[in-house]
Amino acid sequence: MRNEFALIDAITRGLGDRAAGEWISLGPGDDAAVISTTPNFAQIASIDTLLPDVHFPAEAPPELIGYRALMVSFSDLAAMRGVPRYCLVSLSIDKPQLALGADWVVLLARGMADAARELGIYVCGGNLTRGPLNIAVSVHGEVAPQQILRRSGGLPGQRLAVTGALGAAAACVRRGQMVPADSGALTPLQRAYYRPQARFDALAMIMSATAGLDISDGLSQDLGHLCTASGCGASLQSSSIPIAEGATLEDALFGGDDYELLIASDEPLPGTYPIGVLTAESGLTLDSVPLAPKGFDHFGGER
Amino acid sequence: MRNEFALIDAITRGLGDRAAGEWISLGPGDDAAVISTTPNFAQIASIDTLLPDVHFPAEAPPELIGYRALMVSFSDLAAMRGVPRYCLVSLSIDKPQLALGADWVVLLARGMADAARELGIYVCGGNLTRGPLNIAVSVHGEVAPQQILRRSGGLPGQRLAVTGALGAAAACVRRGQMVPADSGALTPLQRAYYRPQARFDALAMIMSATAGLDISDGLSQDLGHLCTASGCGASLQSSSIPIAEGATLEDALFGGDDYELLIASDEPLPGTYPIGVLTAESGLTLDSVPLAPKGFDHFGGER
Repeated sequence: MRNEFALIDAITRGLGDRAAGEWISLGPGDDAAVISTTPNFAQIASIDTLLPDVHFPAEAPPELIGYRALMVSFSDLAAMRGVPRYCLVSLSIDKPQLALGADWVVLLARGMADAARELGIYVCGGNLTRGPLNIAVSVHGEVAPQQILRRSGGLPGQRLAVTGALGAAAACVRRGQMVPADSGALTPLQRAYYRPQARFDALAMIMSATAGLDISDGLSQDLGHLCTASGCGASLQSSSIPIAEGATLEDALFGGDDYELLIASDEPLPGTYPIGVLTAESGLTLDSVPLAPKGFDHFGGER
Repeated sequence: MRNEFALIDAITRGLGDRAAGEWISLGPGDDAAVISTTPNFAQIASIDTLLPDVHFPAEAPPELIGYRALMVSFSDLAAMRGVPRYCLVSLSIDKPQLALGADWVVLLARGMADAARELGIYVCGGNLTRGPLNIAVSVHGEVAPQQILRRSGGLPGQRLAVTGALGAAAACVRRGQMVPADSGALTPLQRAYYRPQARFDALAMIMSATAGLDISDGLSQDLGHLCTASGCGASLQSSSIPIAEGATLEDALFGGDDYELLIASDEPLPGTYPIGVLTAESGLTLDSVPLAPKGFDHFGGER
C-alpha cells in the first residue's frame, strides 16, 4: 500500500462523495480540477499549512487532524464574508504515517470529508509527496464584490464585537489535554480545539460590519492587525469579553485557535458580543491600561 | 528580521509588481485574496509541493528554486489547455534558511516573481510557517469549458506527439550538475532543470488534440497515465522520440522533469513531434517490445 498512486486512490476513497459534485466539473484524477463559477461573484482564496506539534500534536487521531485542517483554513473565507466552494490539499507524509499503511491517510481523508460535508464544499484536488508531515490546504470560495469584508474598513468610534466565546482551544493547549483518549468522545475543551467552526453561519449577522477578520492568533494580536489595517486603535473592557467555560481572560486575549470573527460596526449587531470600541489614538488598551498585542509567532521574534 | 510578519513583508516586497494587479481585486495582507473571473470561463486549479533533495537540491540558489516551483506547478494548467491567472504559496522554512535572515526568502520571492512575470500571473496570497523546508503552490487559471483537455480523451489509432525534446533535466540530475556554480550562468542542462517552461505557448498548436497531460514523471509513466485514463495502450518508435542534446533515450523515457506536453490527436499537429500511436491492446511497447512504465515514485513502491 505504499505506492504513491495506491495511496492517492485510498485518500480519494476516504473522501467519498466529497471529492467531486455540484460545481466541480472535474475532480481528482486529471492534471487539474475544473470548477464552475457563479456569475457576478468574485473568487476568494487563501492557503494555510498545518504542521505537527505546531498546529496539532503529531500523535493526534488523524480524523481529528483532517477535520481541524479544513475548518481552520476555511475560517479565512468566513472572515471575508464569502461562500465556501472547494479546497485543494497538498500532503507530505513520512515513516510514522506510512507505518500505518493506508489507514492513517484514509482516516485523515475521512476527517476532511466530515468537515467538507458540514461546510458544503469539495476537496477536488491534491498532491502527495514523501517528506516531513505537512498539510497545506488552499481554500476557495465566492463572494459578491460589494460584500467583501476587509480588515481595513474600521473607523474610530465604531463598536467592536466577537461572534462567540473565546479561549477554550487555548485552555485545552494550556492544560495539556491535546491528545484525546478517545477521538469519538472529546471533552468540551478538546472539542473547541479539534472541531472549531468556521463561522459561515454568522454571515447574515455581520452583514452591516465594515471591518473584520477571524481570531486565529489570539484576540489581542488579531485586533492589532485590524487596527493597523484600519489606522486606528482600540479600547477593550475585560468584563465584556466573552470567555469560554474552562478558559481564562489570558486564554481569550492571547491564546489563539478560536476562529470566531472579530468585527467593527457603526451599530450593535444582534447576536454578537460587544467587547469595546475603535479609537482615534493608536494602540490597544484593556480597562484603560495599555495592552501589548501578543500571540503566536512562528518565528519567535519580538512584536 | 526573524519576526513572522517582517518576513512576510520582505517576501511581498520581493514579489514586487507580481503580488497584485489586473484581475486581482485584493492581494496579500487580508484574510484572503479576491480575484475577478471571466464570464463563461471555468476555473482550473491544482496544487503541488516541492521538497528539498526531492524536487530541488537544498543548497540550490533560492531564486532558481522559486522560479522552478512556480513553473512546474503551472505546467498542470497548460496540460488542461487553460490560461494561467494566479497562485498561492505556502512556505515552511527553518534554521538553514532563517540563518540567512530575510535574504533567502527575498531571493526565493524574486525567482517566483520572474516566473510570474513570464507566465503573466500574480502570487496574490500565501502563508509562512516555521518547519522543515516545504514549498506548496496552488495554481489557478481559467478555461473555456469546451477547451478542457483531459487524460481520458484518447482513442486507439490516434497519433501521439510531444511538444519538445525530452530528457535534458533528467540528464542534469544523472550527471550530478544540479548545483550551479553561478545561478546567473547555467549550463543548457541546468537551464532545463531550473528554468523549465510551462507550455502555455503551445495551446494553439494542440487545439485539435483530444487527450493530453504534461510530462513530469517521465514519458513512459505519464503515457501510462494517459493510456489508463483513455482505456487503451500505446506503441512508441524509439527513433521518433525527440531527445534533448546531452540526454539519452533512457533519460527521455524514464527521467521526468520535462514539462513538455504529451498529446493524442486524429491528425498530425504541426510543430509537435510524433512519437507513436495509441493502440486497442493495453500496455506500452517500444519498437514492438513491451515497455514497463517507470519513473519517479515518492513512495518507492512497485509499479
